[in-house]
Amino acid sequence: MTDKSIDELQQRLTDFAAARGWEPFHTPKNLAAALSVEAGELLEIFQWLTPEQAATVMADPDQAHRVRDEVADVLAYLLQFCTAVGVDPAAALAAKIERNEIRFPL
Amino acid sequence: MTDKSIDELQQRLTDFAAARGWEPFHTPKNLAAALSVEAGELLEIFQWLTPEQAATVMADPDQAHRVRDEVADVLAYLLQFCTAVGVDPAAALAAKIERNEIRFPL
Amino acid sequence: MTDKSIDELQQRLTDFAAARGWEPFHTPKNLAAALSVEAGELLEIFQWLTPEQAATVMADPDQAHRVRDEVADVLAYLLQFCTAVGVDPAAALAAKIERNEIRFPL
Amino acid sequence: MTDKSIDELQQRLTDFAAARGWEPFHTPKNLAAALSVEAGELLEIFQWLTPEQAATVMADPDQAHRVRDEVADVLAYLLQFCTAVGVDPAAALAAKIERNEIRFPL
Repeated sequence: MTDKSIDELQQRLTDFAAARGWEPFHTPKNLAAALSVEAGELLEIFQWLTPEQAATVMADPDQAHRVRDEVADVLAYLLQFCTAVGVDPAAALAAKIERNEIRFPL
Repeated sequence: MTDKSIDELQQRLTDFAAARGWEPFHTPKNLAAALSVEAGELLEIFQWLTPEQAATVMADPDQAHRVRDEVADVLAYLLQFCTAVGVDPAAALAAKIERNEIRFPL
Repeated sequence: MTDKSIDELQQRLTDFAAARGWEPFHTPKNLAAALSVEAGELLEIFQWLTPEQAATVMADPDQAHRVRDEVADVLAYLLQFCTAVGVDPAAALAAKIERNEIRFPL
Repeated sequence: MTDKSIDELQQRLTDFAAARGWEPFHTPKNLAAALSVEAGELLEIFQWLTPEQAATVMADPDQAHRVRDEVADVLAYLLQFCTAVGVDPAAALAAKIERNEIRFPL
Protein backbone atom coordinates (compact mmCIF):
# COMPACT_ATOMS: atom_id res chain seq x y z
CA MET A 1 0.00 0.00 0.00
CA THR A 2 1.62 3.18 -1.13
CA ASP A 3 0.83 6.83 -1.00
CA LYS A 4 -0.75 8.05 -4.23
CA SER A 5 -0.53 11.75 -3.52
CA ILE A 6 1.94 13.81 -5.52
CA ASP A 7 2.12 16.31 -2.65
CA GLU A 8 3.19 13.67 -0.17
CA LEU A 9 5.83 12.23 -2.49
CA GLN A 10 7.21 15.73 -3.08
CA GLN A 11 7.42 16.29 0.68
CA ARG A 12 9.21 12.97 1.26
CA LEU A 13 11.76 13.83 -1.44
CA THR A 14 12.30 17.30 0.04
CA ASP A 15 12.83 15.87 3.52
CA PHE A 16 15.16 13.18 2.16
CA ALA A 17 17.37 15.72 0.39
CA ALA A 18 17.31 18.20 3.28
CA ALA A 19 18.36 15.55 5.80
CA ARG A 20 21.42 14.80 3.65
CA GLY A 21 22.36 18.41 2.89
CA TRP A 22 21.72 17.95 -0.84
CA GLU A 23 19.71 21.16 -1.36
CA PRO A 24 22.65 23.18 -2.77
CA PHE A 25 22.87 20.69 -5.65
CA HIS A 26 19.13 20.72 -6.32
CA THR A 27 19.01 23.85 -8.47
CA PRO A 28 16.42 24.00 -11.27
CA LYS A 29 19.14 23.62 -13.90
CA ASN A 30 20.79 20.63 -12.22
CA LEU A 31 17.45 18.91 -11.64
CA ALA A 32 16.39 19.47 -15.27
CA ALA A 33 19.69 17.89 -16.34
CA ALA A 34 19.24 14.96 -13.95
CA LEU A 35 15.68 14.42 -15.19
CA SER A 36 16.91 14.27 -18.77
CA VAL A 37 19.71 11.86 -17.81
CA GLU A 38 17.29 9.50 -16.05
CA ALA A 39 14.82 9.63 -18.95
CA GLY A 40 17.76 8.51 -21.10
CA GLU A 41 18.42 5.60 -18.75
CA LEU A 42 14.81 4.50 -19.11
CA LEU A 43 15.07 4.73 -22.90
CA GLU A 44 18.32 2.73 -22.79
CA ILE A 45 16.33 -0.35 -21.72
CA PHE A 46 14.39 -0.18 -25.00
CA GLN A 47 16.94 1.14 -27.47
CA TRP A 48 17.81 -2.12 -29.25
CA LEU A 49 14.45 -3.88 -28.79
CA THR A 50 11.98 -4.50 -31.58
CA PRO A 51 8.48 -3.18 -30.89
CA GLU A 52 7.48 -6.78 -30.13
CA GLN A 53 10.31 -7.28 -27.61
CA ALA A 54 9.61 -3.90 -26.03
CA ALA A 55 5.98 -4.87 -25.50
CA THR A 56 6.96 -7.83 -23.30
CA VAL A 57 9.80 -6.23 -21.33
CA MET A 58 7.92 -6.55 -18.03
CA ALA A 59 7.77 -10.36 -18.37
CA ASP A 60 11.44 -10.50 -17.36
CA PRO A 61 11.81 -9.82 -13.61
CA ASP A 62 15.22 -8.14 -13.94
CA GLN A 63 14.07 -5.88 -16.75
CA ALA A 64 10.84 -5.13 -14.90
CA HIS A 65 12.81 -4.09 -11.81
CA ARG A 66 15.02 -1.86 -13.94
CA VAL A 67 11.98 -0.23 -15.57
CA ARG A 68 10.37 0.50 -12.18
CA ASP A 69 13.68 1.84 -10.87
CA GLU A 70 14.11 4.27 -13.78
CA VAL A 71 10.44 5.34 -13.60
CA ALA A 72 11.05 6.17 -9.93
CA ASP A 73 14.16 8.21 -10.78
CA VAL A 74 12.38 10.17 -13.51
CA LEU A 75 9.40 10.91 -11.25
CA ALA A 76 11.70 11.83 -8.35
CA TYR A 77 13.65 14.38 -10.36
CA LEU A 78 10.49 15.74 -11.98
CA LEU A 79 8.87 16.30 -8.58
CA GLN A 80 12.06 17.80 -7.11
CA PHE A 81 12.33 20.10 -10.12
CA CYS A 82 8.71 21.17 -9.57
CA THR A 83 9.43 21.88 -5.91
CA ALA A 84 12.50 23.95 -6.89
CA VAL A 85 10.59 26.14 -9.36
CA GLY A 86 7.25 26.17 -7.52
CA VAL A 87 5.24 24.38 -10.23
CA ASP A 88 2.26 22.16 -9.38
CA PRO A 89 2.81 19.22 -11.77
CA ALA A 90 -0.77 17.91 -11.61
CA ALA A 91 -2.19 21.38 -12.28
CA ALA A 92 0.27 21.88 -15.15
CA LEU A 93 -0.79 18.58 -16.71
CA ALA A 94 -4.51 19.23 -16.22
CA ALA A 95 -4.11 22.63 -17.92
CA LYS A 96 -2.17 21.03 -20.79
CA ILE A 97 -4.84 18.37 -21.32
CA GLU A 98 -7.43 21.15 -21.52
CA ARG A 99 -5.34 23.01 -24.12
CA ASN A 100 -4.87 19.78 -26.07
CA GLU A 101 -8.62 19.13 -26.08
CA ILE A 102 -8.96 22.39 -28.03
CA ARG A 103 -5.89 21.75 -30.20
CA PHE A 104 -6.94 18.22 -31.15
CA PRO A 105 -10.77 18.37 -31.18
CA LEU A 106 -12.78 15.18 -31.69
CA MET B 1 -8.74 23.52 -8.44
CA THR B 2 -7.07 20.56 -10.07
CA ASP B 3 -7.11 16.87 -9.62
CA LYS B 4 -4.11 15.71 -7.58
CA SER B 5 -4.53 11.98 -8.15
CA ILE B 6 -2.04 10.23 -10.38
CA ASP B 7 -4.66 7.59 -11.14
CA GLU B 8 -7.12 10.14 -12.44
CA LEU B 9 -4.54 11.90 -14.60
CA GLN B 10 -3.51 8.53 -16.07
CA GLN B 11 -7.15 7.77 -16.88
CA ARG B 12 -7.70 11.16 -18.55
CA LEU B 13 -4.60 10.64 -20.70
CA THR B 14 -5.72 7.15 -21.66
CA ASP B 15 -9.18 8.40 -22.62
CA PHE B 16 -7.70 11.32 -24.57
CA ALA B 17 -5.44 9.05 -26.63
CA ALA B 18 -8.14 6.40 -27.15
CA ALA B 19 -10.64 8.98 -28.42
CA ARG B 20 -8.12 10.07 -31.07
CA GLY B 21 -6.98 6.56 -32.09
CA TRP B 22 -3.43 7.19 -30.88
CA GLU B 23 -2.98 3.90 -28.99
CA PRO B 24 -1.02 2.17 -31.80
CA PHE B 25 1.69 4.83 -31.42
CA HIS B 26 1.80 4.58 -27.65
CA THR B 27 4.10 1.58 -27.38
CA PRO B 28 6.49 1.42 -24.41
CA LYS B 29 9.47 2.13 -26.66
CA ASN B 30 7.87 5.14 -28.37
CA LEU B 31 6.66 6.59 -25.06
CA ALA B 32 10.12 6.16 -23.49
CA ALA B 33 11.57 8.03 -26.48
CA ALA B 34 8.95 10.78 -26.25
CA LEU B 35 9.59 11.14 -22.51
CA SER B 36 13.29 11.60 -23.17
CA VAL B 37 12.61 14.13 -25.93
CA GLU B 38 10.34 16.20 -23.67
CA ALA B 39 12.85 16.09 -20.80
CA GLY B 40 15.34 17.52 -23.29
CA GLU B 41 12.91 20.33 -24.14
CA LEU B 42 12.64 21.20 -20.46
CA LEU B 43 16.44 21.21 -20.15
CA GLU B 44 16.68 23.43 -23.25
CA ILE B 45 15.12 26.30 -21.27
CA PHE B 46 18.06 26.19 -18.86
CA GLN B 47 20.99 25.20 -21.10
CA TRP B 48 22.65 28.62 -21.47
CA LEU B 49 21.56 30.11 -18.13
CA THR B 50 23.92 30.71 -15.22
CA PRO B 51 22.80 29.10 -11.95
CA GLU B 52 21.63 32.58 -10.86
CA GLN B 53 19.56 33.13 -14.02
CA ALA B 54 18.11 29.62 -13.78
CA ALA B 55 16.98 30.31 -10.22
CA THR B 56 14.74 33.19 -11.33
CA VAL B 57 13.35 31.67 -14.54
CA MET B 58 9.80 31.66 -13.16
CA ALA B 59 9.84 35.46 -12.73
CA ASP B 60 9.38 35.80 -16.50
CA PRO B 61 5.79 34.92 -17.47
CA ASP B 62 6.73 33.50 -20.89
CA GLN B 63 9.49 31.33 -19.48
CA ALA B 64 7.24 30.26 -16.60
CA HIS B 65 4.56 29.18 -19.08
CA ARG B 66 7.14 27.25 -21.07
CA VAL B 67 8.41 25.50 -17.93
CA ARG B 68 4.88 24.46 -16.89
CA ASP B 69 4.16 23.28 -20.44
CA GLU B 70 7.26 21.06 -20.55
CA VAL B 71 6.63 19.73 -17.04
CA ALA B 72 3.16 18.74 -18.25
CA ASP B 73 4.59 16.97 -21.31
CA VAL B 74 7.16 15.05 -19.25
CA LEU B 75 4.55 13.98 -16.70
CA ALA B 76 2.07 13.06 -19.47
CA TYR B 77 4.52 10.74 -21.23
CA LEU B 78 5.76 9.28 -17.95
CA LEU B 79 2.19 8.42 -16.92
CA GLN B 80 1.32 7.06 -20.37
CA PHE B 81 4.49 4.95 -20.31
CA CYS B 82 3.48 3.61 -16.88
CA THR B 83 0.03 2.74 -18.21
CA ALA B 84 1.58 0.94 -21.19
CA VAL B 85 3.90 -1.24 -19.06
CA GLY B 86 1.60 -1.61 -16.05
CA VAL B 87 3.84 0.19 -13.55
CA ASP B 88 2.41 2.16 -10.61
CA PRO B 89 4.64 5.26 -10.61
CA ALA B 90 3.88 6.32 -7.03
CA ALA B 91 4.56 2.81 -5.73
CA ALA B 92 7.79 2.65 -7.75
CA LEU B 93 8.94 5.95 -6.27
CA ALA B 94 7.95 5.02 -2.71
CA ALA B 95 9.93 1.76 -3.04
CA LYS B 96 12.93 3.66 -4.43
CA ILE B 97 12.87 6.16 -1.55
CA GLU B 98 12.89 3.23 0.87
CA ARG B 99 15.89 1.66 -0.91
CA ASN B 100 17.66 5.02 -0.89
CA GLU B 101 17.06 5.42 2.86
CA ILE B 102 19.16 2.25 3.29
CA ARG B 103 21.71 3.23 0.63
CA PHE B 104 22.24 6.75 2.01
CA PRO B 105 21.73 6.33 5.81
CA LEU B 106 21.71 9.40 8.04
CA MET C 1 32.64 20.18 -51.80
CA THR C 2 32.93 20.23 -48.05
CA ASP C 3 35.73 20.05 -45.63
CA LYS C 4 36.04 16.57 -44.12
CA SER C 5 38.50 17.41 -41.36
CA ILE C 6 37.26 17.43 -37.78
CA ASP C 7 40.02 19.88 -36.89
CA GLU C 8 38.86 22.41 -39.44
CA LEU C 9 35.21 22.14 -38.43
CA GLN C 10 36.22 22.65 -34.80
CA GLN C 11 38.17 25.76 -35.77
CA ARG C 12 35.28 27.19 -37.76
CA LEU C 13 32.93 26.68 -34.82
CA THR C 14 35.40 28.29 -32.42
CA ASP C 15 35.80 31.31 -34.71
CA PHE C 16 32.05 31.58 -35.20
CA ALA C 17 31.36 31.63 -31.44
CA ALA C 18 34.28 33.97 -30.68
CA ALA C 19 33.16 36.50 -33.31
CA ARG C 20 29.75 36.65 -31.59
CA GLY C 21 31.02 36.76 -28.00
CA TRP C 22 29.41 33.42 -27.15
CA GLU C 23 32.41 31.88 -25.36
CA PRO C 24 31.12 32.65 -21.82
CA PHE C 25 28.11 30.42 -22.52
CA HIS C 26 30.18 27.60 -23.98
CA THR C 27 31.19 25.95 -20.72
CA PRO C 28 31.61 22.16 -20.68
CA LYS C 29 28.43 21.73 -18.64
CA ASN C 30 26.32 23.97 -20.92
CA LEU C 31 27.66 22.30 -24.07
CA ALA C 32 26.98 18.83 -22.66
CA ALA C 33 23.41 19.95 -21.93
CA ALA C 34 23.00 21.46 -25.41
CA LEU C 35 24.37 18.27 -27.01
CA SER C 36 21.82 16.19 -25.12
CA VAL C 37 19.00 18.58 -26.09
CA GLU C 38 19.93 18.38 -29.78
CA ALA C 39 20.21 14.58 -29.68
CA GLY C 40 16.65 14.65 -28.32
CA GLU C 41 15.54 16.80 -31.25
CA LEU C 42 17.00 14.27 -33.66
CA LEU C 43 15.20 11.45 -31.84
CA GLU C 44 11.96 13.45 -31.95
CA ILE C 45 11.83 12.96 -35.73
CA PHE C 46 11.63 9.19 -35.20
CA GLN C 47 9.68 8.86 -31.97
CA TRP C 48 6.28 7.86 -33.42
CA LEU C 49 7.56 6.10 -36.56
CA THR C 50 7.46 2.37 -37.08
CA PRO C 51 10.83 0.80 -37.95
CA GLU C 52 9.60 0.67 -41.57
CA GLN C 53 8.67 4.37 -41.65
CA ALA C 54 11.93 5.32 -39.96
CA ALA C 55 13.89 3.47 -42.63
CA THR C 56 12.47 5.68 -45.39
CA VAL C 57 12.57 9.04 -43.59
CA MET C 58 15.11 10.46 -46.04
CA ALA C 59 12.73 9.97 -48.97
CA ASP C 60 10.77 13.00 -47.78
CA PRO C 61 12.70 16.22 -48.57
CA ASP C 62 11.42 18.11 -45.53
CA GLN C 63 12.21 15.28 -43.15
CA ALA C 64 15.60 14.79 -44.80
CA HIS C 65 16.42 18.47 -44.29
CA ARG C 66 15.38 18.24 -40.66
CA VAL C 67 17.56 15.14 -40.13
CA ARG C 68 20.60 16.85 -41.68
CA ASP C 69 19.94 19.96 -39.60
CA GLU C 70 19.80 18.03 -36.32
CA VAL C 71 22.88 15.95 -37.25
CA ALA C 72 24.70 19.25 -37.78
CA ASP C 73 23.58 20.57 -34.39
CA VAL C 74 24.65 17.40 -32.57
CA LEU C 75 28.04 17.38 -34.29
CA ALA C 76 28.51 21.12 -33.66
CA TYR C 77 27.91 20.83 -29.92
CA LEU C 78 29.98 17.66 -29.68
CA LEU C 79 32.93 19.37 -31.37
CA GLN C 80 32.53 22.54 -29.28
CA PHE C 81 32.38 20.41 -26.13
CA CYS C 82 35.58 18.66 -27.20
CA THR C 83 37.26 22.02 -27.76
CA ALA C 84 36.13 23.21 -24.32
CA VAL C 85 37.53 20.17 -22.49
CA GLY C 86 40.52 19.56 -24.76
CA VAL C 87 39.46 16.13 -26.02
CA ASP C 88 40.38 14.88 -29.50
CA PRO C 89 37.11 13.23 -30.62
CA ALA C 90 38.65 11.11 -33.38
CA ALA C 91 41.38 9.83 -31.03
CA ALA C 92 38.77 9.10 -28.33
CA LEU C 93 36.69 7.11 -30.81
CA ALA C 94 39.69 5.22 -32.24
CA ALA C 95 40.73 4.24 -28.67
CA LYS C 96 37.17 3.13 -27.89
CA ILE C 97 36.99 0.96 -31.02
CA GLU C 98 40.24 -0.69 -29.97
CA ARG C 99 38.85 -1.40 -26.47
CA ASN C 100 35.65 -2.75 -28.02
CA GLU C 101 37.64 -5.08 -30.28
CA ILE C 102 38.95 -6.71 -27.08
CA ARG C 103 35.60 -6.55 -25.28
CA PHE C 104 33.64 -8.07 -28.19
CA PRO C 105 36.16 -10.45 -29.84
CA LEU C 106 35.24 -12.20 -33.07
CA MET D 1 48.63 8.83 -34.02
CA THR D 2 44.99 8.59 -34.87
CA ASP D 3 42.94 8.76 -37.96
CA LYS D 4 41.29 12.18 -38.32
CA SER D 5 38.99 11.31 -41.22
CA ILE D 6 35.30 11.01 -40.51
CA ASP D 7 34.99 8.70 -43.52
CA GLU D 8 37.52 6.25 -42.14
CA LEU D 9 35.96 6.20 -38.67
CA GLN D 10 32.56 5.55 -40.25
CA GLN D 11 34.01 2.64 -42.24
CA ARG D 12 35.67 1.12 -39.16
CA LEU D 13 32.37 1.30 -37.25
CA THR D 14 30.49 -0.26 -40.14
CA ASP D 15 33.01 -3.11 -40.38
CA PHE D 16 32.95 -3.62 -36.61
CA ALA D 17 29.16 -3.93 -36.52
CA ALA D 18 29.01 -6.10 -39.65
CA ALA D 19 31.59 -8.54 -38.29
CA ARG D 20 29.41 -9.04 -35.19
CA GLY D 21 26.08 -9.27 -37.01
CA TRP D 22 24.75 -6.12 -35.35
CA GLU D 23 23.33 -4.47 -38.49
CA PRO D 24 19.71 -5.54 -37.82
CA PHE D 25 19.80 -3.49 -34.61
CA HIS D 26 21.35 -0.45 -36.26
CA THR D 27 18.17 1.07 -37.64
CA PRO D 28 17.93 4.88 -37.84
CA LYS D 29 15.42 4.95 -34.99
CA ASN D 30 17.49 2.74 -32.69
CA LEU D 31 20.69 4.65 -33.44
CA ALA D 32 18.96 8.00 -32.78
CA ALA D 33 17.78 6.59 -29.43
CA ALA D 34 21.26 5.27 -28.59
CA LEU D 35 22.82 8.62 -29.51
CA SER D 36 20.43 10.40 -27.16
CA VAL D 37 21.13 7.89 -24.37
CA GLU D 38 24.90 8.36 -24.70
CA ALA D 39 24.58 12.16 -24.77
CA GLY D 40 22.71 11.77 -21.48
CA GLU D 41 25.58 9.71 -20.05
CA LEU D 42 28.01 12.50 -20.97
CA LEU D 43 25.74 15.06 -19.31
CA GLU D 44 25.51 12.84 -16.21
CA ILE D 45 29.19 13.56 -15.48
CA PHE D 46 28.37 17.26 -15.15
CA GLN D 47 24.86 17.26 -13.68
CA TRP D 48 25.75 18.10 -10.04
CA LEU D 49 28.90 20.13 -10.71
CA THR D 50 29.13 23.89 -10.30
CA PRO D 51 30.38 25.72 -13.41
CA GLU D 52 33.76 25.99 -11.67
CA GLN D 53 33.96 22.24 -10.93
CA ALA D 54 32.83 21.43 -14.46
CA ALA D 55 35.63 23.56 -15.89
CA THR D 56 38.29 21.40 -14.20
CA VAL D 57 36.76 17.97 -14.77
CA MET D 58 39.65 16.88 -16.99
CA ALA D 59 42.17 17.38 -14.15
CA ASP D 60 40.89 14.15 -12.59
CA PRO D 61 42.19 11.13 -14.57
CA ASP D 62 39.14 8.96 -13.87
CA GLN D 63 36.70 11.69 -14.85
CA ALA D 64 38.82 12.54 -17.91
CA HIS D 65 38.69 8.90 -19.02
CA ARG D 66 34.93 8.83 -18.54
CA VAL D 67 34.52 12.03 -20.58
CA ARG D 68 36.61 10.65 -23.46
CA ASP D 69 34.68 7.37 -23.30
CA GLU D 70 31.30 9.10 -23.55
CA VAL D 71 32.53 11.44 -26.31
CA ALA D 72 33.54 8.32 -28.23
CA ASP D 73 30.13 6.73 -27.72
CA VAL D 74 28.28 9.85 -28.86
CA LEU D 75 30.48 10.20 -31.94
CA ALA D 76 30.18 6.49 -32.72
CA TYR D 77 26.39 6.51 -32.69
CA LEU D 78 26.24 9.80 -34.57
CA LEU D 79 28.46 8.39 -37.33
CA GLN D 80 26.57 5.08 -37.43
CA PHE D 81 23.29 7.00 -37.65
CA CYS D 82 24.70 9.03 -40.54
CA THR D 83 25.75 5.84 -42.31
CA ALA D 84 22.26 4.36 -41.80
CA VAL D 85 20.45 7.38 -43.28
CA GLY D 86 23.09 8.33 -45.86
CA VAL D 87 23.94 11.74 -44.40
CA ASP D 88 27.43 13.26 -44.71
CA PRO D 89 27.92 14.75 -41.22
CA ALA D 90 30.73 17.14 -42.19
CA ALA D 91 28.74 18.44 -45.16
CA ALA D 92 25.64 18.83 -42.96
CA LEU D 93 27.64 20.82 -40.41
CA ALA D 94 29.35 22.98 -43.04
CA ALA D 95 25.95 23.82 -44.54
CA LYS D 96 24.55 24.64 -41.11
CA ILE D 97 27.46 26.96 -40.31
CA GLU D 98 26.78 28.77 -43.60
CA ARG D 99 23.08 29.15 -42.70
CA ASN D 100 24.04 30.39 -39.24
CA GLU D 101 26.41 32.97 -40.70
CA ILE D 102 23.34 34.49 -42.40
CA ARG D 103 21.07 34.00 -39.38
CA PHE D 104 23.55 35.56 -36.93
CA PRO D 105 25.38 38.21 -39.01
CA LEU D 106 28.32 40.07 -37.52
